[in-house]
Amino acid sequence: MAADFSLGELAERFSLDLRGDAATKIRGVGSLAHAQQGQLAFLANAKYLGLLATTRAGAVVLSSDFVDHYRGSALVADHPHASFARIAALFERTPALKAGVHPSAVIDATADVDPGAVIGPFCVVGPRSRIEVGVELGAHCAIGQDCVVGAQTRLMARVTLVQDVRIGRRVLVQPGAVIGADGFGLVFDAGAWVKVPHLGGVRIGDDCEIGANTTIDRGALDDTVLDEDVRLDNLIQIGHNVQIGAHTAMAACVGVAGSTRIGRHCLIAGAVGIAGHLDICDRVTITGMSLVSHSIREPGEYSSGMPTQDSRQWRRTVARLRQLDRRGSRPAGRAAKDETS
Amino acid sequence: MAADFSLGELAERFSLDLRGDAATKIRGVGSLAHAQQGQLAFLANAKYLGLLATTRAGAVVLSSDFVDHYRGSALVADHPHASFARIAALFERTPALKAGVHPSAVIDATADVDPGAVIGPFCVVGPRSRIEVGVELGAHCAIGQDCVVGAQTRLMARVTLVQDVRIGRRVLVQPGAVIGADGFGLVFDAGAWVKVPHLGGVRIGDDCEIGANTTIDRGALDDTVLDEDVRLDNLIQIGHNVQIGAHTAMAACVGVAGSTRIGRHCLIAGAVGIAGHLDICDRVTITGMSLVSHSIREPGEYSSGMPTQDSRQWRRTVARLRQLDRRGSRPAGRAAKDETS
Amino acid sequence: MAADFSLGELAERFSLDLRGDAATKIRGVGSLAHAQQGQLAFLANAKYLGLLATTRAGAVVLSSDFVDHYRGSALVADHPHASFARIAALFERTPALKAGVHPSAVIDATADVDPGAVIGPFCVVGPRSRIEVGVELGAHCAIGQDCVVGAQTRLMARVTLVQDVRIGRRVLVQPGAVIGADGFGLVFDAGAWVKVPHLGGVRIGDDCEIGANTTIDRGALDDTVLDEDVRLDNLIQIGHNVQIGAHTAMAACVGVAGSTRIGRHCLIAGAVGIAGHLDICDRVTITGMSLVSHSIREPGEYSSGMPTQDSRQWRRTVARLRQLDRRGSRPAGRAAKDETS
Repeated sequence: MAADFSLGELAERFSLDLRGDAATKIRGVGSLAHAQQGQLAFLANAKYLGLLATTRAGAVVLSSDFVDHYRGSALVADHPHASFARIAALFERTPALKAGVHPSAVIDATADVDPGAVIGPFCVVGPRSRIEVGVELGAHCAIGQDCVVGAQTRLMARVTLVQDVRIGRRVLVQPGAVIGADGFGLVFDAGAWVKVPHLGGVRIGDDCEIGANTTIDRGALDDTVLDEDVRLDNLIQIGHNVQIGAHTAMAACVGVAGSTRIGRHCLIAGAVGIAGHLDICDRVTITGMSLVSHSIREPGEYSSGMPTQDSRQWRRTVARLRQLDRRGSRPAGRAAKDETS
Repeated sequence: MAADFSLGELAERFSLDLRGDAATKIRGVGSLAHAQQGQLAFLANAKYLGLLATTRAGAVVLSSDFVDHYRGSALVADHPHASFARIAALFERTPALKAGVHPSAVIDATADVDPGAVIGPFCVVGPRSRIEVGVELGAHCAIGQDCVVGAQTRLMARVTLVQDVRIGRRVLVQPGAVIGADGFGLVFDAGAWVKVPHLGGVRIGDDCEIGANTTIDRGALDDTVLDEDVRLDNLIQIGHNVQIGAHTAMAACVGVAGSTRIGRHCLIAGAVGIAGHLDICDRVTITGMSLVSHSIREPGEYSSGMPTQDSRQWRRTVARLRQLDRRGSRPAGRAAKDETS
Repeated sequence: MAADFSLGELAERFSLDLRGDAATKIRGVGSLAHAQQGQLAFLANAKYLGLLATTRAGAVVLSSDFVDHYRGSALVADHPHASFARIAALFERTPALKAGVHPSAVIDATADVDPGAVIGPFCVVGPRSRIEVGVELGAHCAIGQDCVVGAQTRLMARVTLVQDVRIGRRVLVQPGAVIGADGFGLVFDAGAWVKVPHLGGVRIGDDCEIGANTTIDRGALDDTVLDEDVRLDNLIQIGHNVQIGAHTAMAACVGVAGSTRIGRHCLIAGAVGIAGHLDICDRVTITGMSLVSHSIREPGEYSSGMPTQDSRQWRRTVARLRQLDRRGSRPAGRAAKDETS
């Protein structure tokens, strides 16, 4: 927490070009708009170019394209945001936790907790679960039976792993996430719903991140699977037996229905809905609030989110749209041959 | 957990027709693709018919339509998925919990906890609340004052019943659900919001299921009500004073605004939004991501979710849609009489 | 809990006009449909005017417009719903909690907990955090390091403040909310995601309300900020560095992406999605399920939610919409000049 580096040290450590005074002391990071002397800022978006003239930051990380717009000390990077992210990690004030099990925690006699793990207050670890070295469980985590939490993984406060959940190494799970609850499997028979038992588990690869209050259901028979380096934001729903390929990222409020397979390197924007039993190939981008109701076989960008208008205009737009389907408003009469239903 | 049945026993117990070897041992269940010898699989969707040739399952549950496509031992069912679900329940490995109150739990002196209930670690049970026989409360459940949890109901880890929540029998509530929080009632007056006090409760009928991190608000004056056998998936919002009829099911991420009444046997797909103060009659199906802004008086299927396109096509589609509302692009001029606003 | 007022007392205390018998005893509140004798009801919506003839309420709060439709005792108000809300607060049966720290709670030695605060069972309060007078923390709250919870604020059960969260006075946070988790900041570099460290906090003004299972992320460098009297419903996602102006209210399931600024007195309906880095000015209303993908500079009402139709009609509507973009179905040929892409 008392980190203090010279600009020269940072340039060397992160292989960046230095412009200006190597002795400049860097004691923290800040935004271009609000950084103070002694703080490092960054420029990654030309939209904020104007702030270079007024920033009080001690130094700025930027690309060679912009370096001539700035008179102060700078670190020149090919990818300024990535370099800044790596430097900023030096200044994180994460609580220093002592290895060991908090006396209030309830650990099953058959659980295997590495002595180099941190188990916070009021945690529960169930039968046959294994907590590896360097793991941190925040307060109120509940780990059910037959789970594995891999080395260096952090579960923040109040994370629930229900049962048969295997998490890799260096994973970060934000508070309130529920991993391994029963999927939503129902069959209607004899006048009522019959619940489909869920006997599968969840497997989460190394280096994944799971957002706050996100839910990932266990599989019905096989597992629900996230490959390595999958990044999920908050309040996301991942249904039973979904498979998500490596390096795919999803913004908040996305819902993925059961048994859908999503490829590698996909980018799913906020509040997208993806139906069940689909295949989405690698390198697909879906823009915000789109509904994916069919499989996608070609990489590319896909959309169906409708941008807002003034409400009166919008109501007219909706009315016109509906008229398209009525005989009187068909364009010309040529449309008949285009009818699809 | 060491369940082991002969195929003949299963056929008799579940009234199914047996084809093949009655002595076949079944020790578990699996998917057609991954089941091993000794495991029972099922076929309910013709899409997976091809897997019958390659499955290594010990036996398969299927309908008479498909039985001739399969050479192995089979259980023939009218409704294979329902029969399979009932059989699979024999193989669930739910933790065996001892009846009784975990020593760490905090139980109010006026609470009434049946000796045949299981109260997990770090649970809190408030004044005048009643926990009936066979109930299981997982770790970290918080039951406020004046609640009832009916016989055989299971609240998984970390379920919150705020206050005045009455839950029926054989209900299953997944982790993180919050039932009975104040509804969102506000009146703007004298320059600021005035909060509307919430004095109603929540009533949940027998055999319901509530998903992980789902929220069901208490009523303002009267109760919020779910009738029996209502099934809610994860991350669903049910507003104050909503009423939901028996056997209605909702997939994940649905939001229902306050005071809306939904009928019996409705099916609401994922991420549907239903406005407040509406009436939805019995046997209504709403497809994914639809917006229900008016009452629905006729059974049937309703939609407004827009399927994705390639983003460039979609942008053109949106542009054309907006042109519909401008004079220059009106079809013919005949549209004038269709104007609605 | 044994509140009991005469109608005359209520009229005087809330500056309302009394019609009828000042001695009428009021022991509770109820809806027009279900109130019993001795209960006060209200009429704020002409739609329910018919209930005045049949209500068994002991008295009704209504406006002068409607008073002649009612024969019983009444309190006449300029704003009946607001007056009723203020009266109803007299009858809330919130549990009476004793000031002090529950013996099971884990309080860091460097935390500052006012003796007039209530700390519930299994709460955790971290290093250097301050809990002011009159605060109530329900069961299972986890307060990380360097947080402030202002006087009279109530965190219901199971609220998590991760780190560097400062909450004002008289704020109400419903169960399961997670405030101060890392935002979703990622940079793709060298074949994998690099996490952007989050060093900012969250500031929440006086008199705000935060709904159940809602998530508010901490800022990357600067803070995420809610001004005073902001009201958020359940299952809302507020991204890193979002700023929300005073008196703005959002219904359930809204998602706001990072760095967006929303003005004062805005009304955001349920399940709206707001993209990142936008500016929404004061006094903007957004109707349900709209997608806000551009900044809004003018007060007013905006929409893009598409109302449901019968599914067959809807499929035809979608087909027609797509034909608009194909040459064969262009109206007349005049449309060519309207092409936008």
